[in-house]
Amino acid sequence: MADPLVTLTTDFGNGSHYVAAAKGVMLALNPEVRILDLSHDIPAQDLRQAAFFLTATLPYFPPDTLHVVIVDPGVGSQRAILYVELANLRLLAPDNGCWTWLLEGGRRRPRVIRVTENRFWRSRVSPTFHGRDIFAPVAANLSLGLDPRELGPIVSDWTRLDRPAPRNDANGISGEVLFVDHFGNLITNIPGEALTKDDRLKRVRVGGVEVPRIVRTYSDAEPGTLVALVSSSEWLEVAVNQGSAARQLDACSGTPVTIDWPA
Amino acid sequence: MADPLVTLTTDFGNGSHYVAAAKGVMLALNPEVRILDLSHDIPAQDLRQAAFFLTATLPYFPPDTLHVVIVDPGVGSQRAILYVELANLRLLAPDNGCWTWLLEGGRRRPRVIRVTENRFWRSRVSPTFHGRDIFAPVAANLSLGLDPRELGPIVSDWTRLDRPAPRNDANGISGEVLFVDHFGNLITNIPGEALTKDDRLKRVRVGGVEVPRIVRTYSDAEPGTLVALVSSSEWLEVAVNQGSAARQLDACSGTPVTIDWPA
Amino acid sequence: MADPLVTLTTDFGNGSHYVAAAKGVMLALNPEVRILDLSHDIPAQDLRQAAFFLTATLPYFPPDTLHVVIVDPGVGSQRAILYVELANLRLLAPDNGCWTWLLEGGRRRPRVIRVTENRFWRSRVSPTFHGRDIFAPVAANLSLGLDPRELGPIVSDWTRLDRPAPRNDANGISGEVLFVDHFGNLITNIPGEALTKDDRLKRVRVGGVEVPRIVRTYSDAEPGTLVALVSSSEWLEVAVNQGSAARQLDACSGTPVTIDWPA
Repeated sequence: MADPLVTLTTDFGNGSHYVAAAKGVMLALNPEVRILDLSHDIPAQDLRQAAFFLTATLPYFPPDTLHVVIVDPGVGSQRAILYVELANLRLLAPDNGCWTWLLEGGRRRPRVIRVTENRFWRSRVSPTFHGRDIFAPVAANLSLGLDPRELGPIVSDWTRLDRPAPRNDANGISGEVLFVDHFGNLITNIPGEALTKDDRLKRVRVGGVEVPRIVRTYSDAEPGTLVALVSSSEWLEVAVNQGSAARQLDACSGTPVTIDWPA
Repeated sequence: MADPLVTLTTDFGNGSHYVAAAKGVMLALNPEVRILDLSHDIPAQDLRQAAFFLTATLPYFPPDTLHVVIVDPGVGSQRAILYVELANLRLLAPDNGCWTWLLEGGRRRPRVIRVTENRFWRSRVSPTFHGRDIFAPVAANLSLGLDPRELGPIVSDWTRLDRPAPRNDANGISGEVLFVDHFGNLITNIPGEALTKDDRLKRVRVGGVEVPRIVRTYSDAEPGTLVALVSSSEWLEVAVNQGSAARQLDACSGTPVTIDWPA
Repeated sequence: MADPLVTLTTDFGNGSHYVAAAKGVMLALNPEVRILDLSHDIPAQDLRQAAFFLTATLPYFPPDTLHVVIVDPGVGSQRAILYVELANLRLLAPDNGCWTWLLEGGRRRPRVIRVTENRFWRSRVSPTFHGRDIFAPVAANLSLGLDPRELGPIVSDWTRLDRPAPRNDANGISGEVLFVDHFGNLITNIPGEALTKDDRLKRVRVGGVEVPRIVRTYSDAEPGTLVALVSSSEWLEVAVNQGSAARQLDACSGTPVTIDWPA
């Protein structure tokens, strides 16, 4: 049987000593745990970016994986730490809503446990580094087979994180850029099917600039061409083949995007 | 026996959700696969940088490693995906030539298979993310022992990537910077033996600026000194001890470099 | 039993071909070695940053871990390579002092071996890349169970790295910023207990600017507020809740910090 798998998603910064210390604590408690970095480059304290990242990645992992998420502006405060079981996911995260976009789309109600039993924590807990002192030892204990019910009480309420919703009207849909990827591609909060669901002529605009081409994939257009397409996560995406739409349009998370059907 | 090893080299950006999703798909199919990140920071769509990276790293790995390379400006187009066996290497890469510099130096003819059998792919393939939907599941299947001949037909032709060749004349060699490393060292396309093969006086120039010292290693010169030396990958390299030659010379990939023998 | 664990801490740059080549060499010699990246983003040739990183991370790892540290401005020179056993740590590092801050705090005298037996190295050693040609094969051999005494002679002297010491006087303590983390938090060389050891009023200044709040954790203050607190590594830290103290104060490693007790 494969060794237990724990993934890490944080805003600690790749290569930072915070990541390394948390890994050391986990490995000292369970030398056989396999630790997989998902990202340590979530923008600092940015819960929406964390939420987008988690919805785009966690569903692909095997169901027995434990996902540890530490984007935690409230570290050391009264905010809780939660252990969550969704249909096919297990995660450990601060109670700030960063995981709650995973609830969308009709999955069944999660089992949520508030992590309160400090006998599974490091004996001394720094108020600024729960990653090392609470998340890491709790994750290691879970990877060793600890029953999650030992961690604390089941709770029925938790913090939710709003997802910016697009607005539909008779003429089209108004949304915004949700995420800018490494290539400068703009992933929006408008469902990708808005591009494909019927044969009507469509017009996509980003911050008022019209996107001249609607394509299936980047290379359907000449290099440098601004295009709209359905992203790999099924959202309306605006890109530049072999270029950066973010730079070309001076767009970022929050920039308005519209799709309409010119008469 | 060690678990099967799959390396990843991409331009997805370290910490991006694309990398994480591809890993999730692999692990869901083969929970025992060991995934090793080589780099996710190949400059976007830069086939030459990918090719340099692969020649400088893959030959050191154990022969049963599977190397997955996803620098793929043609994703979703008619470009093929290839499974390649060289003398001591196995890799999966787009048919854009990024792997073909590994053919240099007299290795025997590779076995190349075009990956066409979509029963080993994810059932739904995004035209913009073959990394998750084709490369990852194919790699996972190979790591489980799938016979590569199941992937598709053997082919005898593939795309080659030109390597910028230095020009030799009676007075010396003219080449260029091929790669700038993290320290700002300039790795050129001029063989390192040009520096060492005889006792003649040598003169190295980068973009017209003469390099004052030829050394064995950086610290042979005072900090801040511009030096020429043989790189660890056996090319002529120009560096600054404890500094950045790229910054000092305002040089980048493509900057002309010459070595000659002043009379 | 878990496979042997080797960690890597370098200034090679994350995703660089230097890291990948060194890993390939290790895996070719010991396919079962588990390689864990701690950081490849130590600032180039910065021994103090390396030393800070090591003290903040290595003590958390299980005692049989082998820590390979390659921040090595003297590569290829006469500087030695050392294998070190401290109370609960094993490491391989250049003899430049980068590991010696781990000796502080009363640990017992280390066992130090100078790595001279080149039969455990690659047969051809590049003078600029001992990471691939000496560190990697020696680490792989150690991970296979090689007795460290085979590596070379025990030595009783080694290079030490000065740690900038704070100055105490009747009115307070004068120190400096030792490390700026990914969030822009300033970790100083003043012990954190200076903030907590008595009930006197305290005043913290960074580069002459007074820090208005002393708190337990970031979120004790409003977002954007400059605060002083005890860092998770037990040093006096200056931070901005959900912001960057480094940017707000234009501070960096070396910026003066004082704490005093205004009458």
